[in-house]
Formats: sequence, structure tokens, C-alpha cells
Amino acid sequence: MPNIRLGLCQTNPIVGDISGNVDEIFRRCKKAAESGVNLAVFGEMSITGYPVEDLVTRHGFVADAEVAVSELATRLANEKLGHMAVVVGAPSLASKVNGWAIAHNTAFVIHGGGIIAKYNKHHLPNYSVFDEYRNFVPDDEFVAFNFNEHKVALVICEDIWQNGGPVASISNNQVDLTLVLNGSPFEVDKDDRRQILVQNLATKQKTAVAYVNLFGGQDDLVFDGDSMFVDSSGTVIARASQFTEDLVMVDFNRGIATLASRHSQLKSSDGLWQVWNALSLGLRDYVQKNGFKSVVLGLSGGIDSAVVAAIATDAIGAENVYGISMPSRYSSDHSKSDAQILADNLGCHFETIPIRNMVSTFESDLPLTALASENIQARIRGMILMAQSNNSGHLVLTTGNKTELAVGYSTIYGDSVGGFAPIKDIEKTLVWKLAIWRNNQNAAKGLGELIPENSISKPPSAELRPDQTDQDSLPEYGVLDEILELYIGMRLGFDEIVSGGFDPEVVRRVIDLVDRAEWKRRQGAIGPKITSMAFGRDRRLPITNKYKG
Amino acid sequence: MPNIRLGLCQTNPIVGDISGNVDEIFRRCKKAAESGVNLAVFGEMSITGYPVEDLVTRHGFVADAEVAVSELATRLANEKLGHMAVVVGAPSLASKVNGWAIAHNTAFVIHGGGIIAKYNKHHLPNYSVFDEYRNFVPDDEFVAFNFNEHKVALVICEDIWQNGGPVASISNNQVDLTLVLNGSPFEVDKDDRRQILVQNLATKQKTAVAYVNLFGGQDDLVFDGDSMFVDSSGTVIARASQFTEDLVMVDFNRGIATLASRHSQLKSSDGLWQVWNALSLGLRDYVQKNGFKSVVLGLSGGIDSAVVAAIATDAIGAENVYGISMPSRYSSDHSKSDAQILADNLGCHFETIPIRNMVSTFESDLPLTALASENIQARIRGMILMAQSNNSGHLVLTTGNKTELAVGYSTIYGDSVGGFAPIKDIEKTLVWKLAIWRNNQNAAKGLGELIPENSISKPPSAELRPDQTDQDSLPEYGVLDEILELYIGMRLGFDEIVSGGFDPEVVRRVIDLVDRAEWKRRQGAIGPKITSMAFGRDRRLPITNKYKG
Repeated sequence: MPNIRLGLCQTNPIVGDISGNVDEIFRRCKKAAESGVNLAVFGEMSITGYPVEDLVTRHGFVADAEVAVSELATRLANEKLGHMAVVVGAPSLASKVNGWAIAHNTAFVIHGGGIIAKYNKHHLPNYSVFDEYRNFVPDDEFVAFNFNEHKVALVICEDIWQNGGPVASISNNQVDLTLVLNGSPFEVDKDDRRQILVQNLATKQKTAVAYVNLFGGQDDLVFDGDSMFVDSSGTVIARASQFTEDLVMVDFNRGIATLASRHSQLKSSDGLWQVWNALSLGLRDYVQKNGFKSVVLGLSGGIDSAVVAAIATDAIGAENVYGISMPSRYSSDHSKSDAQILADNLGCHFETIPIRNMVSTFESDLPLTALASENIQARIRGMILMAQSNNSGHLVLTTGNKTELAVGYSTIYGDSVGGFAPIKDIEKTLVWKLAIWRNNQNAAKGLGELIPENSISKPPSAELRPDQTDQDSLPEYGVLDEILELYIGMRLGFDEIVSGGFDPEVVRRVIDLVDRAEWKRRQGAIGPKITSMAFGRDRRLPITNKYKG
Repeated sequence: MPNIRLGLCQTNPIVGDISGNVDEIFRRCKKAAESGVNLAVFGEMSITGYPVEDLVTRHGFVADAEVAVSELATRLANEKLGHMAVVVGAPSLASKVNGWAIAHNTAFVIHGGGIIAKYNKHHLPNYSVFDEYRNFVPDDEFVAFNFNEHKVALVICEDIWQNGGPVASISNNQVDLTLVLNGSPFEVDKDDRRQILVQNLATKQKTAVAYVNLFGGQDDLVFDGDSMFVDSSGTVIARASQFTEDLVMVDFNRGIATLASRHSQLKSSDGLWQVWNALSLGLRDYVQKNGFKSVVLGLSGGIDSAVVAAIATDAIGAENVYGISMPSRYSSDHSKSDAQILADNLGCHFETIPIRNMVSTFESDLPLTALASENIQARIRGMILMAQSNNSGHLVLTTGNKTELAVGYSTIYGDSVGGFAPIKDIEKTLVWKLAIWRNNQNAAKGLGELIPENSISKPPSAELRPDQTDQDSLPEYGVLDEILELYIGMRLGFDEIVSGGFDPEVVRRVIDLVDRAEWKRRQGAIGPKITSMAFGRDRRLPITNKYKG
């Protein structure tokens, strides 16, 4: 049998940038062909980016995507790459209702200047962040094509996470190789689950499996790549890097697979390494794909803004990060100095804009209760950041963590302002861990401290009144995060949480805080999802809601 | 045959307030029984409120709802109402996966102290604002029960909007009467479509139909009631009021139906009447169901804030509406006087808080470009409104209309602040029509002008710089609203819109503005949906999106 040299191509498409994505796919095919690849496989919806959400209900969008696939076929043939089989993902029109497109989520096989096979996704995820049953129609047909005397089957992402459908027909059809196109977002520990899933598919369906995932940030999702090749015995032959572009090459012949690429794989079983890279990639791509060049954020001297500034520096370079210290009369000396030290350590821009005058004017012109007065301070800071954004085009980063967001411990239109929230899915206790981890990374390289030790060790405070600390208003963060995980992550109720040994009064207070903050969360910036239950489209609850169970 | 006296009970449940909703159902049953009703029918999910979204994935929530139905059965029997058949909606547990509930959307028939029949919804809407495929599992069983020697079938809402499923079995099963439980939100002209649908159901399936809908506001949805009874010839025997509680009684015997209630029906074919009432009910219920007593809003002298203030006054009474004029150095004299006149006409609270000093402090402490300076003014106003909310517990209303929201013609964290946006689904040209309509209502009653004529007739302006008008930055509103309807409402692309005769440059600019404002809309307040395509969960598009088609 002729050999298949398979290229697992991890690309980072931009949603809606069809011509840009096609150019990138073409460039990658050309490069892969130079290394002898004759079967290049790209991720789910690699032509349009993923997820496209309601864009796919526009007839013109689906038509443009389908034309782009045909043009890519022609272009590959014209450039003497017609001998390669190239597998890409795009929507395809199933029907039109009232002028709106009803589309399949499709894998196209390009060969010899044309499209030789098409597979439509069967299982449409409609849980968590996914709305595919809203946006696509399922199909039920098993599809395989012959290439270099091998039988090659196609399936898409969710098809291998559910039972039944075309995946179940693979072994009956004596398939040599199954290509799985994926748009599988990162979650902590998902890489382990994926590998088991792919191995089970290989051994149960008696097929080698090439699993190709996208990488890159798209709004609140981060695709981590982590493509892999598993032979029919379940052995992992190759695994791609996480959070970066990659091309993994595998030679495949009569069931025997050997790694054909030598590459220094960027992947780590270290969960904190993964989270940091997910946040950094998510931020970088939000900035770049939306045409920003720089970010601005408030540096309070606290741990949250320090971690966000460090992530931003890793993501887009210190020269593009603008930190602003905005001390009030309640700001401690250590706040100001910790912010300055952080900026010095990072090498980012730093400016101090005291808010005292502005606060005084509001206080003299308006009657303000204690709460209103605290919020005024936070909102003046928000206005300053937004003004800097207006002045210089920076993207404003908001620095709230998941714990704050959960219990509403933030000022809406104040510290919550911004277009992107890098740590919105990071609970407070994890923020500390990330800070320590990142400092350790520096230490391991013989570099100096990045995040000031004092920002890590001091008691957290919003500093909106004298001697305030977070624990005046909230339970100790270790306990709080545990309760939040049970209530939000596990969707347990009051009785179930209390039966875990927590103080009923504390549990009731936490649940009430979470429920009452729903309106604020709805108005919050998006940020990268890294858990199985992030705020946003992952957790859809009414604002008007009297359920207390 | 014994007579059925049917009661179509329009209730306004609060989502999650299971015990409150049950109490209300019980009270309504008791009252209906006093008028001889022996079959009382309530709306879809009347036990829990609707839509409950991801609440239904919590096992405790589904269990609480099912227990509540059983307890209602016992209570009715204990109070000598066991002879009545009472039909209510609630979730019911289908299975449990990983500890999470998988539920049906169910209609329960209570009789003689127990549950004598259960029907599970077949067609689960998963388009527009609905996520039912996410939140429920479908069933496929036809269900009917016998009552007073009539055969009575059950279906739920979407089941009659789609083909197939249990609805198609009705005529084969020789059903006398079909009960349709609905949670059908208001949209302009939907009442006409509903009536045709119910009539078609009756004639095609050879059954009388009792269609019962909820009423009331739930977050961004307004349920308008509009319950009806249609006999098997398709004749409308009775129709309930819109936007209010109602009980319609019909005597039904061997296919002969007669209206048994005399009631002054609140319903109008006037679209503006419907829209005004939808907005007013949506606002009232958001305020009351979330425990607010009063609202505060900025009164600029312009048409948007005038209309919102008038809606608020109709909804919760002038004594609970606080208007604040916040003039700057750019505010015209007419702005200040128009705001004052409006407040006088409405009889609401009115206060003037000039922002000049606060603006000056920012201008002296910060470098500000022209754009930053305009936004500072809007944001200071936002801060003042939020401070008033902090001080007095008012809900802040934001006054932006759909056109502004579409093109991003607003300052985020400025004029967009607030918990509820009453006219967010009202395009600018419709805002004017509503103002004129509302004034005409007053005139017809011999009452004085409500919204100052000058606020209606003057050219709209944000007044953030000297002599500014909206048309400096935007196409004329008539044209703009037409393009927006094609792009957003009809989901057409650039070419299709231009082929309708619009200036390509204008169309391109409008599309770009809409796409670029997606991030702002995501952070906006919710408000009542009245069109078939409202911003929010009705239209789910990526922020990061380079599609230009």
C-alpha cells in the first residue's frame, strides 16, 4: 500500500475571517507538502472559525464559506498541491427557511481540485457553552473515502463524546483511519479526558484515530490544540503542543503508524501551567483579533491586578501594557509601592493618577451614603481607565476574579469596567496559586520576583474605607471558594451544601449573595473559560428568581 | 353528558417562587369554583414560573416543583375542591445524570386529591430566546383523560407551532377538547398568528381548544395572556384580556361551547396600545418581582427619557418615579425646561443636579481627547444615578432605544447604566410614535399633554458638545431604522440590503457600527422584547467577528 503521511494541522482561525483563514490553511498545506505530507487535516469549522453562533443562520455566510472551500480546492490544484488530500471544516447549506439558512456542521475532503467527500456532524452539543442544536441541523450518514488504498472515515468533535450515530458504524465499515475534526475548548483536566476518549474510540472501533483540534482564543473560549494520533491498539503515537500552532506528522501504512515529525512539544501535565497559558492565549487573541495593540488596567497593589498585569505582559509584551495606580485617601502606602514594584518588575508602563480631587468634588456636590461613597471611588477609577482607552485606544482589562463575580463583591461600572476580564473564571484561592507559580517560574530561570511578595501575602482589601479588608464582608476565601464550587460548579442546593459540614448561616448568605449578583454578572465583560462551569453562557439563570433551595 | 365549566386562568407566576405561585393557583381555583368552574386550566410551568432556564438542571428544584404539585392536589381536596380538575404546568424528573436533573416540561392534571394524568412536552423550542432543548428532554406520548364524560387531550405551547408529535394524534383519538398550556411571550402581531394557529388546530384535529397563556414580565420577556377558547369549527368563543390577570369561563357540552363569563376584555388590535402595555407590564414586574419600590432615571429633555418616564409612571405610579436633570455647560435651555415640564406633567419627583463642577475636576486632573471628554459627561451622569440608587434603593432605568443600541450610539458605563432598559427593543422611529400615541390617549380623555411637544419635535441631540445633533454622526433615523431592520431583523447581508436601493456607503457604515458595538451590547441591561429579533439571547453573535458579508 502507498504510504499516508498525515499532517495534523493546528490552526487558529478568526471567526468570520473566511479569506484570512483560507490563506492560512493554504500556507500551512504548502509547508506541510514540503515535508511530504499528503493528507492534511484541519480542525472543526477551520474555514470560518468556531463557534460562529447565529452567523450561520445568515444565508450569505454559509454560501461564502462553501465558495471558499471550492476556491481552496482550485487554488491547491493550481499550485500543484492537488495530490494532497486536505480536510477542512465549514458550514454547508442544508435548507433555507423564511430566507434563513439551516446549515450542517461539515467536514470537506479536498482532493485533485475538487471536493471528494463531505461529512455532516451528527451529535450537536447543546449544553454548557454550546448552542449547536440552535445553529445546525444534524445528519446521520456514515462517510468514508479512499486515499492511498486506505479507508478513511470522518467524524466531528461531539460525535466521539456521545454514543450512537456514524461513529458506531466505523468498525463495521472496516476503517483504517478515522479523522476527528474538533473545536474543543480548554478546561482544566480536559486533556486527560480527551486522550481516554480517543483511545477508547480507537480500540472499540478498531481504527487508528487522528484527532485535530483548533487552538486560539475566541471570545470566552480558549482552544488548546492538543491534537493527537492514536493507533488502533490505543497507543498514543503523537501529541501536539498545547496553546500554540503545531504540525504533527505521522506516517501511516497498513495500520502501522510512526511519528514523522520531530518537535519540541509544548505541553505539561502541570495544571497551573495550562491555566496560565490558557489565560494568556485567551487575552492575546482577544486583543489581536479585535484590532487592539495595547491594554490598560488599574494597579491597586493587590493580587488580582498583579496577576492580570503579569498575564498581559506574558501575552502581548510589557511594552503594550499600561498600568495606572489611582490612589485615594484610603490607599495604604504599601498599595502604592506594591503597584510601583510590580510595574518595575514587569517592565510595563506605569502612571499614578490620584483620585482625591475628583472624589471630593462628588462628595461636595452629592449626598452620599457610605455605600454610595465607596462606589464613587471605584467608579472614578473606572472612568479614568475608560478615558485612557478613549485617549489612546487601549483595551481596558478588568481584574475581578471568579469569587468576586460570584458574590457581587465589586462595583458595577467601577472596578468592573472593561472589555475583557482575564481572570473571571479564576477563583480567589487559585489567583494566589497562579501568582506563586508564576514567581516560581521566574525563580527556576534565575530571574527575579515578578509579583511582589507583599501583594501575595497581605490580607486582601478593596481599600474603599479605612482599615477595610475583604473578610469584613465575606467568609474566609478558602471556605467561600469551597461553598461556591458546590453551589455553582456542582449545582447543589442549600441542604446538600450544609450536609457537607458548612455553617448554615454562611451557606445561606453566600447563596443569597450569588443569586442577587446575577444582574451584575450579566453586565460584566467576557473572559476566558477554564472550568467546567464558568459564568456567562455556561450558566444561564434568570435574574428575576426567587428560588431559595 | 355532564357539563364542563372551563376556567381559563391567566396567572403571573414568579420564577422560582414555587410556594407563592401555588398559593396563587389555589386562590384562583377557589374563586373559579365559586363561579361553578369544574375544570381550571393554568399556563405552562405555572407552578415554577417560566422560563426557569438552568434552574431546572438542579435536582432539588425539580423535586420541589413535583412535591408542590402533589401538595396542591391534597390541599384542593382538603378544601373541598377535589371535584375540580385542575391543570398546571411544572417540570418533572426524567432522569439524573452526574447528579444533575434531566427534566420534562410537564402538564399535570389534578383531580380527587391526586394526579390523574401527566403530559410531557414534545416539541422543545431552541431558537430565538428559547433554550428548551438545553433544559428539557422531549417525550412522544399522546395523553388524554376523561372528565365529565368528555375526552380531554393535553399539549404544551410549541407542540402546536410544529408539525408532528402528539398533536397529530388528536383527531385519531376522537378528542372533544384539547387543553394547550402556554408560556408564549408577546411580540408585535403575535396575537394574530396565535389565533390562526389555534383555529387551524381546532378544525384540522376536530377538537375544541382551550389555549391558556401566562401573563406578566419575566426578565426580558413579557407574557401577554390573550388566552382563548375556539370550538371545533374554528369559531373563537372567548378571548381573554391582554397583559393582565383574567379568568374566562366557557361552558362546554357535546361540542357546544358558550361563553359563561361576562368580562370587559382588555385587548386592542392597536399595535401601539399593545407595545405600550407590554413595556409597562415588563417594567412593573421587573421592579416588583425583584423587590424594588421605586425607579430613578435621568431626564435629559429628550424623547427617549420622556417616554421611559411616562412608561414608568403608568407602570408603578408617579410617586415612585424619580427624575433627575443633570445639565452640563452644553445643555440647552429647552433641555432643562422640557425635563421640568415632563416631570410636572407626569407628577413624578424631580431634581436638578448640575454636573459642571464634576466635569471641570476631571478636565483639570486628566488629559482628555474630545471623545473622552464627551464620555466623561455621560459617565458622571451615570455615577449620579447609581449614587441615588445606592442612597435610596431605586432601580436605575436606562433610557437607550434599540437604534442607539444597534449602532453603539451611547456611552458604556454612562447613559447605559442601569438594571432595566424599558425601550431597548424600541427603534427610534417607534419611540416617537409611542410618544404621540400616549399623548393622544391623554387628549382623548380630555387630559393635558404628557410628553412635551418640544421633546417630540426637536432634533435629537446627546448635547455632549456645542450644537451637536444625532444626525452629525448617524444617518437620518428613518433610513437608519430601515437598514437596521434589514440587517438585524431580517439577517440580510450588505449586497442584499444595497439591492434594496440604499446608499452602499451608508449601509457599510451602519453594518460596521452594529458589528463593532457587540461588546457594548453584551454589557447592557436587559429590557422587554417586543419584536421577533431583540438584542440579547434572541441574537447570539460573537464579539470577535470579522465577517463583513
